[in-house]
Amino acid sequence: MSPLKPETRQKLMGVSTATLCTALFKRGLSHQFIQNVRPLNAGLPNMVGEAYTLRYMPAREDRNPISVFLDRAHPQRKAVEECPPGAVLVIDSRKDARAASAGGILVSRLMKRGVAGIVSDGGFRDSPDIARLPFPVYHQRPAAPTNLTLHEAIDINVPIGCGDAPVFPGDVIVGDGEGVVVIPAHLADEVAAEAFEMTVFEDFVQEQVMQGRSILGLYPPTDEQSRIDFAAWRKAKGR
Amino acid sequence: MSPLKPETRQKLMGVSTATLCTALFKRGLSHQFIQNVRPLNAGLPNMVGEAYTLRYMPAREDRNPISVFLDRAHPQRKAVEECPPGAVLVIDSRKDARAASAGGILVSRLMKRGVAGIVSDGGFRDSPDIARLPFPVYHQRPAAPTNLTLHEAIDINVPIGCGDAPVFPGDVIVGDGEGVVVIPAHLADEVAAEAFEMTVFEDFVQEQVMQGRSILGLYPPTDEQSRIDFAAWRKAKGR
Amino acid sequence: MSPLKPETRQKLMGVSTATLCTALFKRGLSHQFIQNVRPLNAGLPNMVGEAYTLRYMPAREDRNPISVFLDRAHPQRKAVEECPPGAVLVIDSRKDARAASAGGILVSRLMKRGVAGIVSDGGFRDSPDIARLPFPVYHQRPAAPTNLTLHEAIDINVPIGCGDAPVFPGDVIVGDGEGVVVIPAHLADEVAAEAFEMTVFEDFVQEQVMQGRSILGLYPPTDEQSRIDFAAWRKAKGR
Amino acid sequence: MSPLKPETRQKLMGVSTATLCTALFKRGLSHQFIQNVRPLNAGLPNMVGEAYTLRYMPAREDRNPISVFLDRAHPQRKAVEECPPGAVLVIDSRKDARAASAGGILVSRLMKRGVAGIVSDGGFRDSPDIARLPFPVYHQRPAAPTNLTLHEAIDINVPIGCGDAPVFPGDVIVGDGEGVVVIPAHLADEVAAEAFEMTVFEDFVQEQVMQGRSILGLYPPTDEQSRIDFAAWRKAKGR
Amino acid sequence: MSPLKPETRQKLMGVSTATLCTALFKRGLSHQFIQNVRPLNAGLPNMVGEAYTLRYMPAREDRNPISVFLDRAHPQRKAVEECPPGAVLVIDSRKDARAASAGGILVSRLMKRGVAGIVSDGGFRDSPDIARLPFPVYHQRPAAPTNLTLHEAIDINVPIGCGDAPVFPGDVIVGDGEGVVVIPAHLADEVAAEAFEMTVFEDFVQEQVMQGRSILGLYPPTDEQSRIDFAAWRKAKGR
Amino acid sequence: MSPLKPETRQKLMGVSTATLCTALFKRGLSHQFIQNVRPLNAGLPNMVGEAYTLRYMPAREDRNPISVFLDRAHPQRKAVEECPPGAVLVIDSRKDARAASAGGILVSRLMKRGVAGIVSDGGFRDSPDIARLPFPVYHQRPAAPTNLTLHEAIDINVPIGCGDAPVFPGDVIVGDGEGVVVIPAHLADEVAAEAFEMTVFEDFVQEQVMQGRSILGLYPPTDEQSRIDFAAWRKAKGR
Repeated sequence: MSPLKPETRQKLMGVSTATLCTALFKRGLSHQFIQNVRPLNAGLPNMVGEAYTLRYMPAREDRNPISVFLDRAHPQRKAVEECPPGAVLVIDSRKDARAASAGGILVSRLMKRGVAGIVSDGGFRDSPDIARLPFPVYHQRPAAPTNLTLHEAIDINVPIGCGDAPVFPGDVIVGDGEGVVVIPAHLADEVAAEAFEMTVFEDFVQEQVMQGRSILGLYPPTDEQSRIDFAAWRKAKGR
Repeated sequence: MSPLKPETRQKLMGVSTATLCTALFKRGLSHQFIQNVRPLNAGLPNMVGEAYTLRYMPAREDRNPISVFLDRAHPQRKAVEECPPGAVLVIDSRKDARAASAGGILVSRLMKRGVAGIVSDGGFRDSPDIARLPFPVYHQRPAAPTNLTLHEAIDINVPIGCGDAPVFPGDVIVGDGEGVVVIPAHLADEVAAEAFEMTVFEDFVQEQVMQGRSILGLYPPTDEQSRIDFAAWRKAKGR
Repeated sequence: MSPLKPETRQKLMGVSTATLCTALFKRGLSHQFIQNVRPLNAGLPNMVGEAYTLRYMPAREDRNPISVFLDRAHPQRKAVEECPPGAVLVIDSRKDARAASAGGILVSRLMKRGVAGIVSDGGFRDSPDIARLPFPVYHQRPAAPTNLTLHEAIDINVPIGCGDAPVFPGDVIVGDGEGVVVIPAHLADEVAAEAFEMTVFEDFVQEQVMQGRSILGLYPPTDEQSRIDFAAWRKAKGR
Repeated sequence: MSPLKPETRQKLMGVSTATLCTALFKRGLSHQFIQNVRPLNAGLPNMVGEAYTLRYMPAREDRNPISVFLDRAHPQRKAVEECPPGAVLVIDSRKDARAASAGGILVSRLMKRGVAGIVSDGGFRDSPDIARLPFPVYHQRPAAPTNLTLHEAIDINVPIGCGDAPVFPGDVIVGDGEGVVVIPAHLADEVAAEAFEMTVFEDFVQEQVMQGRSILGLYPPTDEQSRIDFAAWRKAKGR
Repeated sequence: MSPLKPETRQKLMGVSTATLCTALFKRGLSHQFIQNVRPLNAGLPNMVGEAYTLRYMPAREDRNPISVFLDRAHPQRKAVEECPPGAVLVIDSRKDARAASAGGILVSRLMKRGVAGIVSDGGFRDSPDIARLPFPVYHQRPAAPTNLTLHEAIDINVPIGCGDAPVFPGDVIVGDGEGVVVIPAHLADEVAAEAFEMTVFEDFVQEQVMQGRSILGLYPPTDEQSRIDFAAWRKAKGR
Repeated sequence: MSPLKPETRQKLMGVSTATLCTALFKRGLSHQFIQNVRPLNAGLPNMVGEAYTLRYMPAREDRNPISVFLDRAHPQRKAVEECPPGAVLVIDSRKDARAASAGGILVSRLMKRGVAGIVSDGGFRDSPDIARLPFPVYHQRPAAPTNLTLHEAIDINVPIGCGDAPVFPGDVIVGDGEGVVVIPAHLADEVAAEAFEMTVFEDFVQEQVMQGRSILGLYPPTDEQSRIDFAAWRKAKGR
């Protein structure tokens, strides 16, 4: 896994998942938004990090008594202790939120270890506690039942699906107040750069629109005047 | 489209979608609530306006590259510039929130143009930005991918479905903190009047209930005393 | 129905639905969490009470005109007036939130009567008003249409399903910021006691984790040291 | 339960569920078709009989070990032995086909007892065996797991929902190759009579259409000539 | 609408929807298969024809009494009489099969008029009768309730969605025992030609595989020998 | 993988998935039935074999052009050539039938190689051709689009989920006309033996029921006479 460049991470901290989705769409990638997950805790900076994955399969009752956690090598607990700082733990819960993907203690441990965030297409338990942590957590909906009820953690750091998006270990995960997007590792730098530029322009457009300007000719800037105005604005703003 | 009377609009600003649904139910209309949409921004006054519609169909890839927006006549952009002030833009997104119906810039433009609000049975992108606008916006859930990913805007101001409700151009759309209801144009005045009256009575009932009174005989007022009390209350309150 | 013991109620006020689900899971019960309901009003203490149930069936139009509420014995109104103080009204709405299970006035009446809370696997109307009451209310999503549109109240205090969970009259219902769990009546005391103990330990673990300790050997406490530390912590905290 | 008149039963044997739905729609009833069930065995005459109902709730594991069937009074077994000959057993399985509503042996017993048929909005097990019986059986899809896995039979002959349709004991149930419709008991005679007449006309129309005639003016018969032709056809056919 | 060339129609009669989907996939089109529809009548030749569309919206009760069919210009009836011979009537029923898209008489009329087939992403009524017609009909599942219950026909021959596929009037519709695919009009000739060639090769491969040959090197023909064998086979077969 | 004993395979050829589900339920296993799959080809003997698994993840467009099949080591093709004779290929398609899991040629190859059958919780393409093969194939519904549209084959013979059931390589898969059940490898012998015995008894019961006997006391045989009769019947039948 090639490490995420600091400048790329920095750029990704300042762009939206919407803008990133457009940059990916231009490259023919239309399934990179993790569908139907939301942040538990609003008002945080973006979540940015490389994907470290955990795959769940349906639980078979005889393999999943409460005692399995006595095993220090249980993949769920192992993942929580081994997910690298700065990475995002992404869990394939098969979009099943009837039982938890993890709970408040494990999420707290990830936060303390310096992990960048956690995403599941299922649900977390202890969600009111999690919502108070200064840590980005995304899921479908709260789920109080222990994960053993329906999920068995079976694989660490393999390619997975999450919310119908393909996730490969090392892909760059970005989350904001809207949701989570998966950037293929090899595209991270160029997509971050393009999204960064797009954001400057969209900030200009938004400002113009709030001043009453029409979107026609401005967004996209098909009028020459729009491009001139943007250049002037950019210079004035020092962006 | 007969314009919405100011006094009707005024009444509709002060009643709930729940009360309106009951008034419509009494007239045999039971599919007028737009199912499964919610406001992005809480605490706003009611959204009231005549429906101006936009119909989306599934996107075919060859017709929906990013370059389509270079066309100033693209129906989505056209709708945003032509939706009348005071109207509500209602989008038929086929209940598909996997890609956006529109984003923050277009929504801002609608707000600046004096449009009364926007509703989609899909999802909006830039939802955290939209949530900060003093403008009523309703959708199913956030959706970062550009609309081109799955939607093609194909028709403006034709009859549509939105959240399983029938919407005809000119129908009166009312949204509150609960959701959005569609009042057929020809019923708007009488439904507004009836709902306004119902609201006065419900305010009385709510006050009585909070003082400890039973609902039996009061709601509905089958006891003579309830009607006497209501008359007195109404007089005292000047309503 | 054996009354809920005050000390059991007290314990249940201080534990989470997540912890209760684990205690139930250990006893072989894995369907006791009411799926897909959420609190309308955050920040309240736990909801705890014995289940008093109301069963809805699909509405047949000729049996459900608005005039049915003129009948004081209508099961919905009857349930609202007869649900015992301290109990939780649990409604089987067949997971159908397209029409309301009840509205703000009935919910207010329940609150005033000293009922402990209300749960429906459908939706409530007047949800913005309900959200301002200091009263625990759980549902799937807001629903403005009157219940008569799709629901007929048909049975009071019979065994029902709610959000795929089995609910028997007298079962103990606990709700928190995450959701709602159903404890079989005969297990209430022992499950409350066990969950209470688990909560003490989890509070210790959470504190340790927030101080940087690994979960391995701590959660569960397979390391002898963890158990020693916990004993000391508990003594120090007086818990 | 007033017994179904033989002539009504006879008429209902000869009409389709589609025609019956139209007759009910004309009376303001639009939820009487049991959604999403299909016959296991094609080519049988219509199923006609009064509803005898069985209500399932979600199974709680401790109440539903395999040994419950040692109890001769178990509601599922009781229903199978007590459903009156000529009646239709209608099961409310909460549209959940992940576990069986019943299996081949119980269905065979119903057939031998002279019951008119069985409907569940869940699934039956032993479906290949059932498909070979000369007995009308309708369900959503096959389900091999025993009913105890997810269903507990809790009530006999109470009002229920089945496939989103309201079913009261004594309602008249009609099934054909398309599905199953529920006729409120008090409407059975008139709806049967009307549907019988409609069927004569539709047979005429179908014959005309197959001979190349346009539907305009014929269906409905807005052209005078259509009514004349129908009268002549009817006379010639002796219907 | 440019007419479908006879040789293109002829080729499309002999290829599968699976092969056509692959040819479309190679051109970047991945949403052209109408999802979740199936043929009512097995064993027919392919359905091939240009799309003639009908759009349904949610029904509003006051606009959809049974009497609307007295109007000869009702869009549903009009579409049935005006759909050109050789075309396929494609109905956008918003994937809602709770009420019918049409019934046996209308379908019979289409057949007699020489229409090539009919597709709805909802359901047809009189499905057992329809299943006996030598006419290709595709839907989601049977639906006895009259279309007026939930659908209002509102537009003829406009672009629609059907089963999540985009359908433009004049697109070429092909159905087989598997389902229905939509070929954009401008691609019909080239896609038909390519699929025709692919089918010859796949027939060869299938024959080889049934004789025990491995797919490696054969499918696709990465081994030189596979290509040699195919050339010989083709010559021998005269294809 | 310990090989499946011939006598166990033989027993499993003669029992139903329903009976096997009951035997598993008695052992506390309630998620072993693969939900929502059906056989394409009726009238075949049971499918019995050890699971050989293939895992699909969501397809990323840049990794899944049509050219990937030029690679002989592509996991889908590899699985088809390496799945052992006598085994069942089980595919985790994430319950997504919008694109194919495989097509007729690959299925034919599996059949020729002596594989026991194939199951996917998605859909197969070329389903009409597959339906004519004397080979057990189970899926959710037909799907013409190539698997590359939505699926990337990523792992061979790892633990997977299929139709919400846990499947481990080597588990014993049994399919009949109803569906498919997964027997944990270590339980195969005892479950087969028990189901075989249960089947003898159920055949006796079915015969008795068809002769008019009540199920009470017979099924289960709580009456002493039932056990006596069964013993006699068994002796007479030589089973």
